[in-house]
Amino acid sequence: MISFDQAYTHVLEHTLELGIEVVPLMQSLQRVLAEDICADRDFPPFDRATKDGIAINYSDHINTDHILQIEGVAAAGAPQQELRTVGNCVEVMTGAVVPQNTDTVIMYEHISITDNVAVINEKVSKGQNIHYKGSDEKAGAVLLTIGTKITAAEIGVMATVGKSYVTVKANPKITTIATGNELVEVDAVPLPHQIRKSNTITLEAALQTRAIPTNSLHLIDNKEALSKSLKTALKQNDVLLLSGGVSKGKFDFIPEVMETLGVEKVFHRVAQRPGKPFWFGVHKELKTVIFSFPGNPVSTFANFHVYFLPWLHKCWNIPVANQYIKLSGEIHIKPPLTRFIQVCTKREKGGIYAVPISENGSGDLLSLSKSNGFICLQPREKGYGSGELVPFISTK
Amino acid sequence: MISFDQAYTHVLEHTLELGIEVVPLMQSLQRVLAEDICADRDFPPFDRATKDGIAINYSDHINTDHILQIEGVAAAGAPQQELRTVGNCVEVMTGAVVPQNTDTVIMYEHISITDNVAVINEKVSKGQNIHYKGSDEKAGAVLLTIGTKITAAEIGVMATVGKSYVTVKANPKITTIATGNELVEVDAVPLPHQIRKSNTITLEAALQTRAIPTNSLHLIDNKEALSKSLKTALKQNDVLLLSGGVSKGKFDFIPEVMETLGVEKVFHRVAQRPGKPFWFGVHKELKTVIFSFPGNPVSTFANFHVYFLPWLHKCWNIPVANQYIKLSGEIHIKPPLTRFIQVCTKREKGGIYAVPISENGSGDLLSLSKSNGFICLQPREKGYGSGELVPFISTK
Repeated sequence: MISFDQAYTHVLEHTLELGIEVVPLMQSLQRVLAEDICADRDFPPFDRATKDGIAINYSDHINTDHILQIEGVAAAGAPQQELRTVGNCVEVMTGAVVPQNTDTVIMYEHISITDNVAVINEKVSKGQNIHYKGSDEKAGAVLLTIGTKITAAEIGVMATVGKSYVTVKANPKITTIATGNELVEVDAVPLPHQIRKSNTITLEAALQTRAIPTNSLHLIDNKEALSKSLKTALKQNDVLLLSGGVSKGKFDFIPEVMETLGVEKVFHRVAQRPGKPFWFGVHKELKTVIFSFPGNPVSTFANFHVYFLPWLHKCWNIPVANQYIKLSGEIHIKPPLTRFIQVCTKREKGGIYAVPISENGSGDLLSLSKSNGFICLQPREKGYGSGELVPFISTK
Repeated sequence: MISFDQAYTHVLEHTLELGIEVVPLMQSLQRVLAEDICADRDFPPFDRATKDGIAINYSDHINTDHILQIEGVAAAGAPQQELRTVGNCVEVMTGAVVPQNTDTVIMYEHISITDNVAVINEKVSKGQNIHYKGSDEKAGAVLLTIGTKITAAEIGVMATVGKSYVTVKANPKITTIATGNELVEVDAVPLPHQIRKSNTITLEAALQTRAIPTNSLHLIDNKEALSKSLKTALKQNDVLLLSGGVSKGKFDFIPEVMETLGVEKVFHRVAQRPGKPFWFGVHKELKTVIFSFPGNPVSTFANFHVYFLPWLHKCWNIPVANQYIKLSGEIHIKPPLTRFIQVCTKREKGGIYAVPISENGSGDLLSLSKSNGFICLQPREKGYGSGELVPFISTK
């Protein structure tokens, strides 16, 4: 049995080169950029009026009596116009190109117009109400960098620079595998000794939230059948996420079968709760990484967040966000096990506090919906104090 | 012009009854529950072994010399077995039904087995290593309540109780509408006076993140064309989200056209920045709600989060999470405008701080990708101090 720190280090030592793929813009939502996104031209691309009103030449204006003949109208979406006569003005709309020979925009609220003549009623500053060409960004500037998580705002930026297709980090091919004869489908009525599959469905949902599609399998506790199915699964996937079959039971065949299929065990059993029987291996030739989580719902869910997601971030070469929040009360974690404790966070006076939820052991699936993450506490002789900062792993 | 508080109140006064719909379990991810989810049986459904080892009858055991004949093996997924002979034991696997006439499980680590005889090497507590029937929840208990946002954990809970179909709050039918002659498609090369569409695409992405599908339209600044398209859109949708066409420009036809189509203006112009020209109306007969946002990217994005999302939460009868975070420095907001200021949050010592990002006005789309939310500051004579708690609206 190894320590949590050792297990975590080992997992991160076995990343895969997942490559990149090109997807249509809207499908890049929630993905991770694999290219820098650059400005294809200046932003804004022209001197842009930011108010509806009139555009004037400021130097002319100071020589007039604030009464200007209107020469025309510059609409948004129309080519740039030209102010032809000194002392005149052009009506201009928000978003329009500021006309040639003008340098200042006065909003309607500050003028009055009668018979096509504008009278200025307020003080004017030279250059006002113009969003200058290139003032946000110059052509060629890097707007978004490789490794950025794509949210709605990034979709907007990419639309603006014409990225109808986007290069993103490729997802690993993942199959989630439920093991155990006691499991039946969600739509089945279980016999008294059976339960419905939920762990792999939970994992699929957690991956779907991150725009990662999955396949799923259910394998029964039979060595030959396991061997046959896993052989194919190892070939067809980058990652297998298994649930169950790694404890000390007579029918926990996963470690043995994996090793006969050429998978190299990196470790089995970690000094942690929940999830002690976690088994982790790699098939070096096929380049497949196997996370074999214990079958209890809390164990599988915790290990997925604690190990798999940081592993995936490392594969994509993006940082794992380490969050720390405050404990709402004292907790004592006696050696030797590292503990992942389900908490519900509470915001108070600008701080975030971890409030442990009551749970009934690692088989208590229902507790997962009451929490929004785990705090990760290393064992130590001295208790953790109320208000102490501890690592937090969000699950919602 | 009305105040932000008035505008917000008006928007929330015009909610719609959106109804419910039934979707397959995996499609309920990110949706909102419209039914309580109850335990269909006790959880766990039987006295469940939580360790691999042997099951004994504790009272018998204290009368023996800790040496027990093994009668058989109870596997997970097999019907309940029975211990037939006093003083014997049954091997039992994690997840298996604890055999009849046994009440205590001893893990393999605490026994040794030779020739089908187990010897107990450690102290045993009566009832240990059993996850008792109904100890998590009793049959009929409400596990998830109406209004719960469905994440991976809730998917797992629903799988367990056999919900292959789930009743969720129905999404509104939404069309996002870009207006303006200056807009071209993302894959087009714009002429010097044109820009690519981005606002409606950003809104679509923000809605897609929430599992809400949308249609989209681009309408040019022509009264007849606008009128024709909007007439149909009003009929076919619950909500129209427009961007542009509500300022004081000569081609800002939206308010006028809406009113000719029977839409009742609730308000136009709010004392806020960005997004002052925000127009809001309802078509009472068609039961359509119209959010007509100013065309600047930051205005549209801010108003969507400030008004539309709380409106949607109210329609679904779920609470709006009011978040408060600390200011990282002093800010002075002079009357009369309420300000939505883009910030990037920073976590420090268990607190969350709002760090305003530099932006170049409401036309600065690029700034949106640098922030993860807005702080909402009411105007006041006294400045906001560093560390003061202020409302925060998350956008990522």
